[in-house]
Amino acid sequence: MDIATLIGIALGVFLIFFSIILGGDIMGFVSPGSMMIVIGGTFAATLVNYPLSTVLEVVNITRNAFLYKEESPAEVIDTMVALAEKARREGILAIEKSIYDIDDPFMRNGIQLAVDGSDPEVIRDIMENELSNLEARHKTGHSVLHSMGTYSPAFGMIGTLIGLIQMLRVLEDPTQIGGGMAVALITTFYGALLANLVFLPLEGKLKSRTRDEVLKREMVIEGILSIQSGDNPRIVKGKLMTFVAPKFRTE
Amino acid sequence: MDIATLIGIALGVFLIFFSIILGGDIMGFVSPGSMMIVIGGTFAATLVNYPLSTVLEVVNITRNAFLYKEESPAEVIDTMVALAEKARREGILAIEKSIYDIDDPFMRNGIQLAVDGSDPEVIRDIMENELSNLEARHKTGHSVLHSMGTYSPAFGMIGTLIGLIQMLRVLEDPTQIGGGMAVALITTFYGALLANLVFLPLEGKLKSRTRDEVLKREMVIEGILSIQSGDNPRIVKGKLMTFVAPKFRTE
Amino acid sequence: MDIATLIGIALGVFLIFFSIILGGDIMGFVSPGSMMIVIGGTFAATLVNYPLSTVLEVVNITRNAFLYKEESPAEVIDTMVALAEKARREGILAIEKSIYDIDDPFMRNGIQLAVDGSDPEVIRDIMENELSNLEARHKTGHSVLHSMGTYSPAFGMIGTLIGLIQMLRVLEDPTQIGGGMAVALITTFYGALLANLVFLPLEGKLKSRTRDEVLKREMVIEGILSIQSGDNPRIVKGKLMTFVAPKFRTE
Amino acid sequence: MDIATLIGIALGVFLIFFSIILGGDIMGFVSPGSMMIVIGGTFAATLVNYPLSTVLEVVNITRNAFLYKEESPAEVIDTMVALAEKARREGILAIEKSIYDIDDPFMRNGIQLAVDGSDPEVIRDIMENELSNLEARHKTGHSVLHSMGTYSPAFGMIGTLIGLIQMLRVLEDPTQIGGGMAVALITTFYGALLANLVFLPLEGKLKSRTRDEVLKREMVIEGILSIQSGDNPRIVKGKLMTFVAPKFRTE
Amino acid sequence: MDIATLIGIALGVFLIFFSIILGGDIMGFVSPGSMMIVIGGTFAATLVNYPLSTVLEVVNITRNAFLYKEESPAEVIDTMVALAEKARREGILAIEKSIYDIDDPFMRNGIQLAVDGSDPEVIRDIMENELSNLEARHKTGHSVLHSMGTYSPAFGMIGTLIGLIQMLRVLEDPTQIGGGMAVALITTFYGALLANLVFLPLEGKLKSRTRDEVLKREMVIEGILSIQSGDNPRIVKGKLMTFVAPKFRTE
Repeated sequence: MDIATLIGIALGVFLIFFSIILGGDIMGFVSPGSMMIVIGGTFAATLVNYPLSTVLEVVNITRNAFLYKEESPAEVIDTMVALAEKARREGILAIEKSIYDIDDPFMRNGIQLAVDGSDPEVIRDIMENELSNLEARHKTGHSVLHSMGTYSPAFGMIGTLIGLIQMLRVLEDPTQIGGGMAVALITTFYGALLANLVFLPLEGKLKSRTRDEVLKREMVIEGILSIQSGDNPRIVKGKLMTFVAPKFRTE
Repeated sequence: MDIATLIGIALGVFLIFFSIILGGDIMGFVSPGSMMIVIGGTFAATLVNYPLSTVLEVVNITRNAFLYKEESPAEVIDTMVALAEKARREGILAIEKSIYDIDDPFMRNGIQLAVDGSDPEVIRDIMENELSNLEARHKTGHSVLHSMGTYSPAFGMIGTLIGLIQMLRVLEDPTQIGGGMAVALITTFYGALLANLVFLPLEGKLKSRTRDEVLKREMVIEGILSIQSGDNPRIVKGKLMTFVAPKFRTE
Repeated sequence: MDIATLIGIALGVFLIFFSIILGGDIMGFVSPGSMMIVIGGTFAATLVNYPLSTVLEVVNITRNAFLYKEESPAEVIDTMVALAEKARREGILAIEKSIYDIDDPFMRNGIQLAVDGSDPEVIRDIMENELSNLEARHKTGHSVLHSMGTYSPAFGMIGTLIGLIQMLRVLEDPTQIGGGMAVALITTFYGALLANLVFLPLEGKLKSRTRDEVLKREMVIEGILSIQSGDNPRIVKGKLMTFVAPKFRTE
Repeated sequence: MDIATLIGIALGVFLIFFSIILGGDIMGFVSPGSMMIVIGGTFAATLVNYPLSTVLEVVNITRNAFLYKEESPAEVIDTMVALAEKARREGILAIEKSIYDIDDPFMRNGIQLAVDGSDPEVIRDIMENELSNLEARHKTGHSVLHSMGTYSPAFGMIGTLIGLIQMLRVLEDPTQIGGGMAVALITTFYGALLANLVFLPLEGKLKSRTRDEVLKREMVIEGILSIQSGDNPRIVKGKLMTFVAPKFRTE
Repeated sequence: MDIATLIGIALGVFLIFFSIILGGDIMGFVSPGSMMIVIGGTFAATLVNYPLSTVLEVVNITRNAFLYKEESPAEVIDTMVALAEKARREGILAIEKSIYDIDDPFMRNGIQLAVDGSDPEVIRDIMENELSNLEARHKTGHSVLHSMGTYSPAFGMIGTLIGLIQMLRVLEDPTQIGGGMAVALITTFYGALLANLVFLPLEGKLKSRTRDEVLKREMVIEGILSIQSGDNPRIVKGKLMTFVAPKFRTE
């Protein structure tokens, strides 16, 4: 589980609550109408902006920002080096049996291709095509959150404009401007908070996840091609080590 | 029909109406003059910004955001695999007759090229050129909506400036500032709403559509080249499967 | 003549005038001082930003946005196909005489190179180099209008700040704030109008023009290389057809 | 140590303090609640936005902006030329012993590869892969500071909105608007200051550092390949000189 | 000397002065404290953002925006054609003596390489590497001015916030709001003016200069390679002519 996502949102919400309570009554910040305009408007614009299937998938994707288990790229290296050693000792065909021990379908596929004796160029093409299509699909998911992060402050402002226009039309006594203004500003507050504590940071987290995954898959591609070409396990390790920061490199 | 586009706009309009009625009289938000400045100004700037033919085509293109029938890429795979099987059984020339059953002129063209025995490099060049020119034409359409999405809040602000200047010039009693301000702010409200509920989300939807179409056409190019090179239908399927998300992959 | 540019600016100006007159006196919106700050300041910043020769050329380039005669890419196809037929019938050298009937110096140059028997790679290099240098020069022109579109609202705001500071310094009676504020806001109004009705849309129109021209020249390059390689006129036509939208393709 | 980073922050803080004291009491600008919302909110959003490990690493990376010792690229040239001379005189294997005198593990690795007689293409691939992965890791670090530079003004605004809403709700006497507004604006002030004096400039400094390091490593790659190919030390020097500004070139 | 830079800044300053004097007293716009915050803060942030050496070099680079002598690319063509003629008549070695007549070290270097009989690919690599490193160094210089153009309005706003907070805290009589507000707004005015009349336009001018220089150096590279390959002077001229606008092409 990604503890940082949870802690971050909890901390942000706590700080806002605390800061509101410090200065007065929390009830002045609860406005179902404002919430409706900001969340509903953002959702409406998102529905216009993306195909239904993409919008529905976002719930799925967003779960990733909370549940993703951070795996060290070192594990990829260990797996690839173990395979390289086996291939070296018992021949490339020997690693076919290891396929059933591997969870990651991407790695499994690649090993199958290598065992089948496909041309290295073909293996690279197929795996890189798969990788770039995965990246493209993830990017669509990120862009939904990005759009929500730009529509929510916009609808916050639209809600505030509605509130301001209504208040100003009936304004007779300028001293009464305060209350109406306070109500009108709540939608701007909601929009800004949703964008900067939820939508945009979640987009960022998902992008980090995708970067991580892409890096690991690039390591898998390099590793499989290196194993297929009969490289010494030390060389396989050396090649994959260039992908990780020096301090994570082991001997 | 793209139901999400319709639902999104309907939901957005309903929320705005509801929120206005909740807070008072809907008539305070109806202003033909403001509408004229925002819609007319946006249209005028768009006419300066794009050739007449491009502007006229946008109506056409925008219909796509409502009427587009989402087709699964799985259908492309099925068609290509069926062709691959036929080519395998009866030879590449046998698929020439299938051309008349295919609606998509892009796919038809490609198959014709393959049947004619053109060089694979030539087929790829011609089809990718056609694809990138299609993308360029679509992009022009998207950019019209994008421009409208930036001009409409700008003319909303210009309208508000006109209203403010007129009100402030004759202002003698500051207590009367409310009514004039309310009227002036309506153009900003119109501009923001049009941009964030109509123009920018429609641009997004059209971009999604184009991405979908480009992906399917890339699959067609890969599939035709794979068929022409005499690949086994299983291989054809395997290559095209890398384009779709794992969960849509069938055995 | 590009009628859309003219209509757009005329429509925009009319709407603004109409909207001002509807709400009061046009004279309140005429301020030579504000005009001086916005137009003069924008011009000054543009002079610092670009070499003198580039700034002077913009007048020239901008004329294009009004006078450009939209030519269909179909004409390019017709010309190239006619040349292909002649080359096919009478040999490549026969088309040398046609050069004098061609207005476009880019096409003329390319045909000369083909007739001279230059290497196809050399022809492509020379023509693409010329094309990319043309694009670079046009881009500089567009960027001048883009800069004017960002400097004019900036100087609008600077003018408003000057007005506000002057008014606020001598303000004793808050009820007099209206008049001074109205005057100060006029510069913001001028800056926003110039940017959104003139500079930025004109930049857009010129970009469309350049895109059109580049597309046609890419067609010329493909066509000449196809003719030189002795392609059948039908093939030449087929290759060029991929550049235009399907609905413009003729048999 | 990077003296400019220290001087810059000290100068900025001093100017702000001085300017505040000049105009009145410093205590009006100290608000623990505002600090909590801006710093805490920025930190919370950053935690949501990045994996925990990345956030923790930023402290480490940021130290670089203060402690980095600016090394002239000339030193890289001197080292490479010395190695080239040795390789020329005593053969490529002779430089293996020099490896232990070299601090930079990147350079050491590259020399080892060259001494081992690896293929130049392989050396370039491995070293450039390592370099581009280093760049990617640094970029992630920079993007954390960039995010903090966009979240801090956002939370500054959110804090101001909270303050404004609280003040406006209880506002009865418009003459009391001043004090509450002053308090509300302090969060905006904190957010703007943090972004523009700390987060964004530090991001810039780290980017400069990375550019420097990448340039030097590109020089190392060129130099090692040049040495391995047996180039004359003068040629090695000439090739590396093209990386530095003419005025730093020595004979 | 670049007369446009001087005229632009002089014109801008004059317009601002004139506009201020027209509306009142110039003294209301002179505020050493505001100047200190805007210029000092911008300088402080720039020091944090860039290595000291880069900041110091900007003074040097900026001089270019005033002193640069615009040289027509036609001169480059003339020089290259003269060399081509000499090489044609007397052999490539004959042009070695011409090196001492050439001021530009880049051109001199390239000719030396050609005379030395280096491989064309090597010449291109060395010269393009030098050119792209030059571009990278110039870009760093431009980015300093760009940063100053974003920090100066930010510190303008920070100064205004300080002024507003100080004024609002002691505000008892709303009618006194004017004077304090005027003083506070002066920093925003300074920041906006510095950014839009000085920093950003100077960045633009330096970018134009770099584009010019890069274009000329690309011409030098093409020309030298063309001469070395023994091209006819007419061909050399023809190749270089594609770099300049048709109207500057001479027969």
